[in-house]
Amino acid sequence: MLHGLERLIDLALEEDIATGDITTNALISPGARGRGIIVAKAPMIVAGLVVARRVFKRLDADLHVMDPAAEGQRDASGDTLMTAEGRMAALLTAERTALNFLQRLCGIATHVRHYVDMLHDIPVRLVDTRKTTPGWRALEKYAVRVGGAANHRFNLSDGILIKDNHIAACGGIAAAVGRARRAAPHRLKVEVETETRAEVETALQAGADIIMLDNMEPDDIRAAVRLIGGRALVEISGGVDRNNLKTLAACGADIISVGALTHAARAVDISMRIEALPDKPR
Amino acid sequence: MLHGLERLIDLALEEDIATGDITTNALISPGARGRGIIVAKAPMIVAGLVVARRVFKRLDADLHVMDPAAEGQRDASGDTLMTAEGRMAALLTAERTALNFLQRLCGIATHVRHYVDMLHDIPVRLVDTRKTTPGWRALEKYAVRVGGAANHRFNLSDGILIKDNHIAACGGIAAAVGRARRAAPHRLKVEVETETRAEVETALQAGADIIMLDNMEPDDIRAAVRLIGGRALVEISGGVDRNNLKTLAACGADIISVGALTHAARAVDISMRIEALPDKPR
Amino acid sequence: MLHGLERLIDLALEEDIATGDITTNALISPGARGRGIIVAKAPMIVAGLVVARRVFKRLDADLHVMDPAAEGQRDASGDTLMTAEGRMAALLTAERTALNFLQRLCGIATHVRHYVDMLHDIPVRLVDTRKTTPGWRALEKYAVRVGGAANHRFNLSDGILIKDNHIAACGGIAAAVGRARRAAPHRLKVEVETETRAEVETALQAGADIIMLDNMEPDDIRAAVRLIGGRALVEISGGVDRNNLKTLAACGADIISVGALTHAARAVDISMRIEALPDKPR
Amino acid sequence: MLHGLERLIDLALEEDIATGDITTNALISPGARGRGIIVAKAPMIVAGLVVARRVFKRLDADLHVMDPAAEGQRDASGDTLMTAEGRMAALLTAERTALNFLQRLCGIATHVRHYVDMLHDIPVRLVDTRKTTPGWRALEKYAVRVGGAANHRFNLSDGILIKDNHIAACGGIAAAVGRARRAAPHRLKVEVETETRAEVETALQAGADIIMLDNMEPDDIRAAVRLIGGRALVEISGGVDRNNLKTLAACGADIISVGALTHAARAVDISMRIEALPDKPR
Amino acid sequence: MLHGLERLIDLALEEDIATGDITTNALISPGARGRGIIVAKAPMIVAGLVVARRVFKRLDADLHVMDPAAEGQRDASGDTLMTAEGRMAALLTAERTALNFLQRLCGIATHVRHYVDMLHDIPVRLVDTRKTTPGWRALEKYAVRVGGAANHRFNLSDGILIKDNHIAACGGIAAAVGRARRAAPHRLKVEVETETRAEVETALQAGADIIMLDNMEPDDIRAAVRLIGGRALVEISGGVDRNNLKTLAACGADIISVGALTHAARAVDISMRIEALPDKPR
Amino acid sequence: MLHGLERLIDLALEEDIATGDITTNALISPGARGRGIIVAKAPMIVAGLVVARRVFKRLDADLHVMDPAAEGQRDASGDTLMTAEGRMAALLTAERTALNFLQRLCGIATHVRHYVDMLHDIPVRLVDTRKTTPGWRALEKYAVRVGGAANHRFNLSDGILIKDNHIAACGGIAAAVGRARRAAPHRLKVEVETETRAEVETALQAGADIIMLDNMEPDDIRAAVRLIGGRALVEISGGVDRNNLKTLAACGADIISVGALTHAARAVDISMRIEALPDKPR
Repeated sequence: MLHGLERLIDLALEEDIATGDITTNALISPGARGRGIIVAKAPMIVAGLVVARRVFKRLDADLHVMDPAAEGQRDASGDTLMTAEGRMAALLTAERTALNFLQRLCGIATHVRHYVDMLHDIPVRLVDTRKTTPGWRALEKYAVRVGGAANHRFNLSDGILIKDNHIAACGGIAAAVGRARRAAPHRLKVEVETETRAEVETALQAGADIIMLDNMEPDDIRAAVRLIGGRALVEISGGVDRNNLKTLAACGADIISVGALTHAARAVDISMRIEALPDKPR
Repeated sequence: MLHGLERLIDLALEEDIATGDITTNALISPGARGRGIIVAKAPMIVAGLVVARRVFKRLDADLHVMDPAAEGQRDASGDTLMTAEGRMAALLTAERTALNFLQRLCGIATHVRHYVDMLHDIPVRLVDTRKTTPGWRALEKYAVRVGGAANHRFNLSDGILIKDNHIAACGGIAAAVGRARRAAPHRLKVEVETETRAEVETALQAGADIIMLDNMEPDDIRAAVRLIGGRALVEISGGVDRNNLKTLAACGADIISVGALTHAARAVDISMRIEALPDKPR
Repeated sequence: MLHGLERLIDLALEEDIATGDITTNALISPGARGRGIIVAKAPMIVAGLVVARRVFKRLDADLHVMDPAAEGQRDASGDTLMTAEGRMAALLTAERTALNFLQRLCGIATHVRHYVDMLHDIPVRLVDTRKTTPGWRALEKYAVRVGGAANHRFNLSDGILIKDNHIAACGGIAAAVGRARRAAPHRLKVEVETETRAEVETALQAGADIIMLDNMEPDDIRAAVRLIGGRALVEISGGVDRNNLKTLAACGADIISVGALTHAARAVDISMRIEALPDKPR
Repeated sequence: MLHGLERLIDLALEEDIATGDITTNALISPGARGRGIIVAKAPMIVAGLVVARRVFKRLDADLHVMDPAAEGQRDASGDTLMTAEGRMAALLTAERTALNFLQRLCGIATHVRHYVDMLHDIPVRLVDTRKTTPGWRALEKYAVRVGGAANHRFNLSDGILIKDNHIAACGGIAAAVGRARRAAPHRLKVEVETETRAEVETALQAGADIIMLDNMEPDDIRAAVRLIGGRALVEISGGVDRNNLKTLAACGADIISVGALTHAARAVDISMRIEALPDKPR
Repeated sequence: MLHGLERLIDLALEEDIATGDITTNALISPGARGRGIIVAKAPMIVAGLVVARRVFKRLDADLHVMDPAAEGQRDASGDTLMTAEGRMAALLTAERTALNFLQRLCGIATHVRHYVDMLHDIPVRLVDTRKTTPGWRALEKYAVRVGGAANHRFNLSDGILIKDNHIAACGGIAAAVGRARRAAPHRLKVEVETETRAEVETALQAGADIIMLDNMEPDDIRAAVRLIGGRALVEISGGVDRNNLKTLAACGADIISVGALTHAARAVDISMRIEALPDKPR
Repeated sequence: MLHGLERLIDLALEEDIATGDITTNALISPGARGRGIIVAKAPMIVAGLVVARRVFKRLDADLHVMDPAAEGQRDASGDTLMTAEGRMAALLTAERTALNFLQRLCGIATHVRHYVDMLHDIPVRLVDTRKTTPGWRALEKYAVRVGGAANHRFNLSDGILIKDNHIAACGGIAAAVGRARRAAPHRLKVEVETETRAEVETALQAGADIIMLDNMEPDDIRAAVRLIGGRALVEISGGVDRNNLKTLAACGADIISVGALTHAARAVDISMRIEALPDKPR
C-alpha cells in the first residue's frame, strides 16, 4: 500500500464531509441505489484507481466497485475509468473526493508520459525530485512510476545527496565526499552536485558514486560525461523543461531529473455520471 | 489557524525526513549556524508565509524567522519572501518542505489574481469550488482569498447545493427545492443547479435562494438574469476558462464559480539561498 | 455516520477497559456464550441504538446484535431496546459503555420530545443551540433530531450569527450586518441578535436574513414579528423553559431555540440483563 | 493532569470551530483586544477552571487567564469565576467551548455537594459509579472529588467487582469469590454483589474483602452490617436517591455508591461577558 | 485484546516498511504465492502467536494463518510455531516484524518459566514489576503470565505502593499508611515498603494490607513473616536473582517480585522459512 | 530528533500513569519539591539521556534537568548520570518510565561497546541488523551508534538486500541481481546474500555492489574476499557471536553485521535517589 494513504484519505473525507452531506441527507432516501460511472473528459494516462476505490469503500464498504481501466493505460475522452454501485447517498457523498484524487494523479501520469515519450529513443533514466505536494509524496511518486518514469529520493533518509551548502560547510567537494563516504551507510551511493568541469574532476577523484551536473550547458555535460567515463553515474539536473529535454538527455548522462514532472502537472478533466438503480428487494 | 494545518505539516515533515536527513547529519556540524533566504524566481502573489514559518519552527523552535514580504503582495523575481536564521542543519532539513508549501500556495494566489484582475471592472463575486487537492482544502481556499477571490462551500455540510442527481432522485426541481426548504437548516440558503430557462423559472417559483446556471451560453444567462430580476442570487458555473471569463462575468450574474482557480494552478519558482553565519559564542 | 463517533467510542472503550476487564477475565471462561437484553426501565424515546451497536461490534465483531426498537419510537418501561448474542465475556465488558451512551442519548430524545409535544399545534421550528457536551456535538444534535426538533448551527463555520460583542466591535448593528453581507459566504444567511424594537428595525433595514429576538417579552416579540412582516426569518432565543415555551412560541416567530434541549436533559434508566446460552458446538 | 483531557479538548475545539469562526473572522479586527469575564448565574460549587483555562490557552497561548475563584469553592450568582484577557477574536471563538466544559463540571460538583451535605453527620464514604458520560470519565470523577465525594472504580481494570452475571457463570458466590482470590492481582480487594442475607453470609465465608448490598431494604442492610461485623467492608448500592439517601446511609455501612452523582446532574448557568480593551500599542 | 497492541503494531510496521519494501517490490511478482513456516531454533516456551498473527493479517487480510503451537507450550528446536499462506510479497515484507515480536515474547516466557520451575514446590506467588520496555507493558506482562508467573501493578493507578520517598515525605511509615487508608480508593489494598523489622512492626500496626520486605536477608524475612503472622500479605522484593531465588522464596512470604523476569530476558532464536506455492488459478 | 520518539514516550507515559499516580497523589503535597539523582549501579556506556530528559519534561515542563554525563561516555557504578529538580510529585511519577528507557538504551550501548572494543585493531565496519524491538527501531539504532558501531538498513525502503527467497523467486542470483539493477533506485547499492563460492562468483559477475557472505566458514570467507578483490563490498553475516567475532572479522571483509548487538543486550542497573528540597518561597 502507499505510505500515508489512509491518513490522507482520512483528512480528505473529513475536510469534505465535515458534519455531514446535508443536501444528500435532506433529499436522497436512504434506500435509494445507483451506479456512478467515472468518465475521462480528455485524453489521459490512468493513475489512482486504487485510491478512488479506497475512497468509495471507506464511505460504504458495501459499494461494488469495478475498474474497466488499468493503471498506466492511455484513455480517450469518453472512456469509462471506474464504476461504483450501491447506496445512492454514498455515491453522491464520495464523488468529489474520489474525483479530486483521480484528476490530480491522472494529471501527473499524463504529464509524465509526455516526457517519457519524448525520450523513447534515448537511453537515459528519467526521474522525479522531492518537489511534490506536501502530504502527497508517496502518491505523486506512484503516479510518476505509472507515467513511466522512475523515482529519485523519497526522502532525506534514503539517499545521500551533497548539495552546494553541504560542500561549503565542509570546505570543498573533496572534503565533503570523503566525510560522507566514512560517515554514511555503506548501502547508499554517495551523490554530489557539481557546477563546473573542475568540480566534476574533484568529485570523481574523491570517490563519488553519482555526479550530478547542475544547470550545465550541453557542451559541458558532454565533456563531463567523457571525463567520468563510466567511473560514476552521471545525473543531469536543474532547469530542464520540454524545450531542452531532448537536447540535454542526449548528452550521454545516465539519469535526468525533472522537478516539473510533479510540480508543473495540472489536473485533468474527469467527471462522474450517476444512474438510478431500482431499489433492492428486501 | 487553518483547519488541519498541523496534521498536514506533520505528514509533510514525516514523509520528507523519515528516519533523518543523513546527508546533513553526516556533513554539517551541530554547532554550525546560517541564514536561509527564500527568494522569488518569478513574479508572483505571495501566499503561505505563515505556513512556511510553521515548518521552520517545527523543525527547530529556536530559528528566528522574518517576513519582509506580506500575504497578498505582488513580488518580482529576485525579491526576498522570508529569512530564517539559526542552526544550519535545521535550515537544510526544513528547506524542501517549506518551499514545497510556498511554491504551491503562491502558485494558486498568483493564478487567482490573474482572474481577479480580468474582472476588476465587473461587479461579480469570483468564487472557487470544491475541486481542491485532497488534504489541502483549507490551505487552497486560503490562497484563493489571498489572491483576491472568495470561497464557495468549504465542505458538504456548510451549504446546500442541489445538483442534477438530487433533482432526478426527487422527481424534479420543484420537489427537490421544496423538500430542501423544509428539511435543511434555516440558516443556509438553498441553491439549485439549472440548465435551461424553464428550470430557472421552476426553481424561482419553488423558492430557491440561489440559482446556479450550469454551462449556459451568454444569451441564456442574460435572459435568466432578467427573468430572476433580483428575487434570487444568480451563480454562473461550469466550463469557465480565461477565454470566456469576461464575457460570462459581464452577463449580470452575482457570482461566477471557477474550479480552475485551484485545480489548474501550477507551482511558481521559489528557491532558498543559504549563507553561513559565525558560530554562536557560548 | 456521525462525525467523530469512532473517536469518541475509542475514548470511551479505552477509559472503561483500560488494561482489561480483570473480573471478567478471572471468572468467565473464554468459551462461554450469552445473550444481553437491553431493557427500558422508564418510558422513553429511543435514540442511539446505532451507537450501542457499534460499541458491541468494536468489542467483538462476531456479536450478533438485533434492534427490536427503532430510533424515535416511544417505549414503555420493560420494553426491550436491543439484544446482543455471542461471547459472554464481550457482553460483560461492553455493557457499561453501551448503556452509558444509550442512557444519555435516549435521555435527550425523551426530553426533546416533551418540548416538541407541547408545540404540536404551533407552526414554529424548535431548534437546539451549541450548548452541548464537549466531544458530543454530533451525537447530541442527532438525539435532538430523533426527538423531533431541528438543529441550529453545528459549529462556528456553518452559520453567521452576529452577537452583541460583534455588534459592539463594529460600532452598531447596521455596520455589522453590512460588513457580514460583504465578507461572508454568499450561501449563508446573515443572522443578527437584537434586544429592542429599535434594533430590530435597524437590522431589517441593514438587510439581515434572520433576526434573533434575544430575551424579549411576548408583547415585544409580537410587535417585532409584525414589524418584520416576512421580510426576514424571526428567531426567539434566551430564557426559554417549559413554563414560558408555549406562550413564546405562539407569538408568531418562525424559529424558537432552546439550549435546555441538550444541557438540561438527564440520563434515563436503562439496564442490561444477561442470559447464559449453551456453548457453541465446535 | 486529567487522563484524556487533551484529546477531549481537541475533539471539542474541532467540533465547534470546524473550518473557522466565520462571524468573528468577518467582523472582528485581528488587532482588537478584550477581556472575557466568566460569571456564575446561579449558586454553585466551582469545578473545572483548570479545563477552561486549557481551552483558552489552546486557542491562543498569549491570553492572560486569571481565576478569582478556586476549585471546590461555593459561589453565588453574580460571582466571577475566571477572566481572560487578550485577542478579542480568540475570546469570542473560545467562549462556547469553555462554558460548555464549565457548566457541566460545576453542575456535577454542585449536585454532588448536595448529597455530601446531607451526609455531613454520618460516617459513611459517598462514592460515584461508572455511569459517566463516555469520553468524560476522568473529568466527571474529578468533579465528584471537587464536590466532596470519593471515587469508586475508574475502569474495569482497577478493581474487582463480582456481579450477578459473574456469579451465575461460576455457579455461585462461593465459587466466584474463591476463583477471584486465586486469579486476581493480590493488590486488589475482592468485592462481590449480594442481594440477600444468605448471600452475604456466603460471601463472607468465601473471603470477600468488600460486600456490596444491592438494592436492599434498611432492615436487611442493618442485619447484614451486624452479621459482617467488620470482617469486610460493606457497600450499599442500587436505587439510592435523595429521598432515601440519609436513611440508607445511616444503616451502618462503610460506603454508599450513587450513580446519580454523575448521570443525573444538570449543567448550571454560567455566562461570559466581554469588554473591549484599547489596542496594544506596538 | 492487549492494551495498546494495535498502536504498537502500527509503529512497528511503519518503522520497518517505511515507503515500501523495495527489494520485494522489485523482485517478486504480485501474483506469486508462498507459505511461511516459523520455526523454533532453540528450546522455548511459546508466547505471542496472537501478536504475530495480527502482524500478518495487517499486512494482508487474506493471508491464511495457522498455529500448530499453543501459547505456553514448551517447544523444541525445529518445532513449527506458525504457518502463513498467501501472497509471497506480503510474507516477505511481514517476516522481520513478526519475528521481532515473537523472539522477544517467547524470550520472556522462556525466561520466566525457568524461575517458575525453580519454585514448583514452594507455595509462593511469583510476580513481575514495572521494569518493562516502554511501550510494551501489556505485552511483556502477558508473556509473564504465559510463562506461568503473575503480574504486580500494571501502572501507577491500579495499586497503592508506598515507597521510601513517599514515607520520607509523610514523616514516617505510620503517617504514610494512615493517610493512604483515608485518601486512597477503598477497593485497593495498601502496600508499603519496609527495610527493617521495626518498620515492619510499624507498618503492621498502621494497618497496611501488604508489607513489602525490601532487600532483606533470609533471617530477617523469616522473622518478619512470623511477626506478621497472616495479618497482612508479605512480599519479598529487591535483589532477587537465580542464585538466591529458592532460598528467599522458601522464607514463608506470600509473594516474591522479580524485575529480572522482564528486564533480563533475551530474545530467543526463531526463523521463518518460505516455500513457493503454485500461482492461484483465476 | 529520533523518529517516532514522541509517540513512544506517549505510549510509555500512558501505559504507566493510566488514570493517575494514586500513591503519589494521596501522599505527596502538591507544593513539595525535590531532586532526583539518577545513578549507575554497574559500569556502563551512557546512552539515552536525551530520552530521559524528554520524559521528565513531558511530565512537567518546569523540571530543571542536568546531565553530568555525556552520551557515549563510560561510567562506573556510583556515577551520576542525570539530575532533575522541581515538583516532587512529578519526579516520583516520571521515575520508572525514565529509568526503563535508560536501562535499555545504556544496556545496548554497553553491549555494543564490548564488541567494538574486541575489534579495535581490525579494519572492519561493525553494523547492526533489523532484529530490534518493535517500536524501538530508531532508539536502538541510536544506542548502537552511541556504542560505537554503525547501522545497517533502518527499514525495507532504504536499502536493497536480496535474500534467498528473492533469489529463488527470480530463478537464480544472476537474474535477481540483474532485475534489481534495472528496477531499483539508482542511488542505492545492490546487496545480495550468498552461501557458497559459486554464488559469490555469480553475484560478482551480475554486478552486485555488496556481497553478503551468509554463515560462511573463515576459509570460505577469505577465499571470497580474494575472489572479489575490491570489486564489491563484502559483508559477513549470520551466526556471529562473541566467540567467533574476532576470527570472522579478521578475514578481510569490509563489514560484519551482528543481530545480537540489539537483540541479546540486557538492561543495565540504574536507579534514582530522591532528596527533598525546601518548598519554594512564593
